[in-house]
Amino acid sequence: MKLTVDSGYLSPWALSAFAALTVKGVPFTLETIDLSVPRRPEYAAKSLTGLIPLLEDGDFTLIESTAITGYIDETVPGPALYPQDARQRARARQVQSWIRSSLQPLRKERPTEAVFLGQRFAPLSAEAEACARQFLGIAGRLLGHGGDHLCGDWSLADIDLALMINRLHLHGDHLDGTPLPERLTAYADRQWQHPAVQAWLALRG
Amino acid sequence: MKLTVDSGYLSPWALSAFAALTVKGVPFTLETIDLSVPRRPEYAAKSLTGLIPLLEDGDFTLIESTAITGYIDETVPGPALYPQDARQRARARQVQSWIRSSLQPLRKERPTEAVFLGQRFAPLSAEAEACARQFLGIAGRLLGHGGDHLCGDWSLADIDLALMINRLHLHGDHLDGTPLPERLTAYADRQWQHPAVQAWLALRG
Ligand SMILES: [Ca+2]
Ligand SMILES: [Ca+2]
Ligand SMILES: [Ca+2]
Ligand SMILES: [Ca+2]
Repeated sequence: MKLTVDSGYLSPWALSAFAALTVKGVPFTLETIDLSVPRRPEYAAKSLTGLIPLLEDGDFTLIESTAITGYIDETVPGPALYPQDARQRARARQVQSWIRSSLQPLRKERPTEAVFLGQRFAPLSAEAEACARQFLGIAGRLLGHGGDHLCGDWSLADIDLALMINRLHLHGDHLDGTPLPERLTAYADRQWQHPAVQAWLALRG
Repeated sequence: MKLTVDSGYLSPWALSAFAALTVKGVPFTLETIDLSVPRRPEYAAKSLTGLIPLLEDGDFTLIESTAITGYIDETVPGPALYPQDARQRARARQVQSWIRSSLQPLRKERPTEAVFLGQRFAPLSAEAEACARQFLGIAGRLLGHGGDHLCGDWSLADIDLALMINRLHLHGDHLDGTPLPERLTAYADRQWQHPAVQAWLALRG
């Protein structure tokens, strides 16, 4: 297997695909490309959109992180990346889809440079603050069961949700003058200790 | 099973969930909500984001169309909604994820009112035209195998891709002064005849 990610190690979707291979414990080659320069034709021929992450399994190529992680889970032996129970698995996919298709204002004003590089950005706009408020409300509901993980056992959705919380938490944001809910920040801190996340952080050297 | 969709029957994601239940042939209740008015608390309690589509299976509730259709495929007997082969299934998910997370300029300037209501919109901006050009190039690559469907057998991804082509095709758009590639419009026309799409169109009465 070969996985191509961004050379800045800043993409949350690249982290998800990297974590999938790391958790499985399958040997893989990691390549990086610089997204700030035009893609070479060889890469464009393999990546449908020219973007990352790109998984190569022999001559089979695949983009889109949830398609990649689903493929890895279904074809590579090892620890499960998604819950075995159909309802819990559906909930994990629900969270992954929601995080990928929504929350744009928050993602824009708290890019992953805040998470991975400790960069600091301007206070949230009213729009991003409303988005953050909605996000934290939903995250609180998702973790309202009081368990350690989103969907019973650990799943890749935990890394996604933790990263989204960390856009605010690691940036030191308060909301409406109060700190983020301790339950959410404790959850994100715990998930951040996951060996696959730690391995991703260590890539930066 | 109960599925809630938008009262305008305009959401492509609602169509996808509706098609999943329709293809399975499972009895289900269809409800609609008017997205232009604030959501009632009962609905907000069931839909994580307040959005549609919402699937209810007893007291289990689920949003996000691909989570819904994956759950239906895995728990409801009947025809498959996704390919059985792991690589083909991954390709179908790849297309669904790509269509849901990209192509915003095209989706914005060719909303589904162009597809379902025959409404006409202004010529594409330069940005949306570039997006449409990229989209058609990728769609051409995806269908380059010359088969009838994206991923071997029919899958839900075919409805998604056909709908995206139809944003341009049914609107009568030309690109760079030439009609859309016939292979793509013929594909979209064929997919539009799928019984589940026709059942969706018939809901409008
Ligand atoms: Ca969404
Ligand atoms: Ca854990
Ligand atoms: Ca994408
Ligand atoms: Ca067909």
